[in-house]
Amino acid sequence: MTTPANSTAFSGEVWAELRLADASDVPHIHALIHQMAEFELLTDLFAATHELLTSTLFPSPPRPPLTSFTALILDLSPSPLPASADSTIGSCRLDLSASPLADPEAAAFASPRGGGRVTAGFVICFPNYSTFLSKPGLYVEDIFVRAPWRRRGLGRMMLSAVAGKAAELGMGRVEWCVLDWNKNAIDFYEGMGAEVLPQWRICRLTGAALDKYKGGQEESGKAAAE
Amino acid sequence: MTTPANSTAFSGEVWAELRLADASDVPHIHALIHQMAEFELLTDLFAATHELLTSTLFPSPPRPPLTSFTALILDLSPSPLPASADSTIGSCRLDLSASPLADPEAAAFASPRGGGRVTAGFVICFPNYSTFLSKPGLYVEDIFVRAPWRRRGLGRMMLSAVAGKAAELGMGRVEWCVLDWNKNAIDFYEGMGAEVLPQWRICRLTGAALDKYKGGQEESGKAAAE
Repeated sequence: MTTPANSTAFSGEVWAELRLADASDVPHIHALIHQMAEFELLTDLFAATHELLTSTLFPSPPRPPLTSFTALILDLSPSPLPASADSTIGSCRLDLSASPLADPEAAAFASPRGGGRVTAGFVICFPNYSTFLSKPGLYVEDIFVRAPWRRRGLGRMMLSAVAGKAAELGMGRVEWCVLDWNKNAIDFYEGMGAEVLPQWRICRLTGAALDKYKGGQEESGKAAAE
Repeated sequence: MTTPANSTAFSGEVWAELRLADASDVPHIHALIHQMAEFELLTDLFAATHELLTSTLFPSPPRPPLTSFTALILDLSPSPLPASADSTIGSCRLDLSASPLADPEAAAFASPRGGGRVTAGFVICFPNYSTFLSKPGLYVEDIFVRAPWRRRGLGRMMLSAVAGKAAELGMGRVEWCVLDWNKNAIDFYEGMGAEVLPQWRICRLTGAALDKYKGGQEESGKAAAE
């Protein structure tokens, strides 16, 4: 059963595709990042703009996928989607016949790919490096699904597809971060085979604390921890 | 006072330079990574080879520094070093007149740059990405200094120089990881202006747990945490 994208109700079968993003997806990526900032109560840190997203995620000439910052888009379609060898990373089918789904933002998130598709989420990832393995890995900075589409297996499909791609590329690891109080997420990730490292903490130098290192280098040594 | 590199004793003034590495540094980088694995009691994870390091860190054509995986070398010189605009990232001078330094591995770590220089440490770093800032940052995977050269300010010089470079490039953050029980390192990093994030944990999918995602994608949805 098909459901037009400008409707707020989805029922029957819906086809999900995780695909490489392009510059036409920037407005939706921007809006999704803002929703993520609201969800994490971090809108004060939100400084993304269409211009910055375009220049950092979609430079020209384009880079091969997963060799640098890479954006992926989750589109949902009321009709089956032919997988594109060029851009499809993962896919799954949702059966909503038992519980129709209302998406009040469906019209605002109409996918630039057309065909009644609706954009429901995104992934940002980039290569990292393991010195011991001397191999690239993949770091997943964000996986986000809009509220009405959560708890239907889309996060699992997205992370599985990204992990599959990393494994196929011969990468040694896939890594991401989770908040230590988010037990549901930790259980979910452990169920997918991930190890949650208990002892490592992230150190961050940013803003004025980072800027003070600009141009200046220490000219004489003091005792250092390294 | 000059000290030949094949001696084990350094005294007087010594000039330290943090510089971009090249493929001729691979044997020393490999040996330093092995020392780091021994220090961290993780030699069972050590799988680095000269071939893997060369192909992943020094591909041809070369990439601009800090746009992908980047290796930096810490060289110590018995005579002043002219800074090279092309490759010098940071420098400092050590005054060893009060406490001469014995480096039993000085001959084994003679720098390929010659001039009596000795390689004493390395940095591996690569760009990461902040979605909220829509900007690249820099992730420091490793900073390592050989044992005789520790606690003389070289770690501070290296991290300051890397942070300065990131700030000059307009990057939004410098990040790295620390073990939560390593109070000395945490105090040192906080003293440099870094924030240690208490709540984030690293999730890692590797080895057989990663390989099982190869080629396969979930075809139907299950409840997901995202």
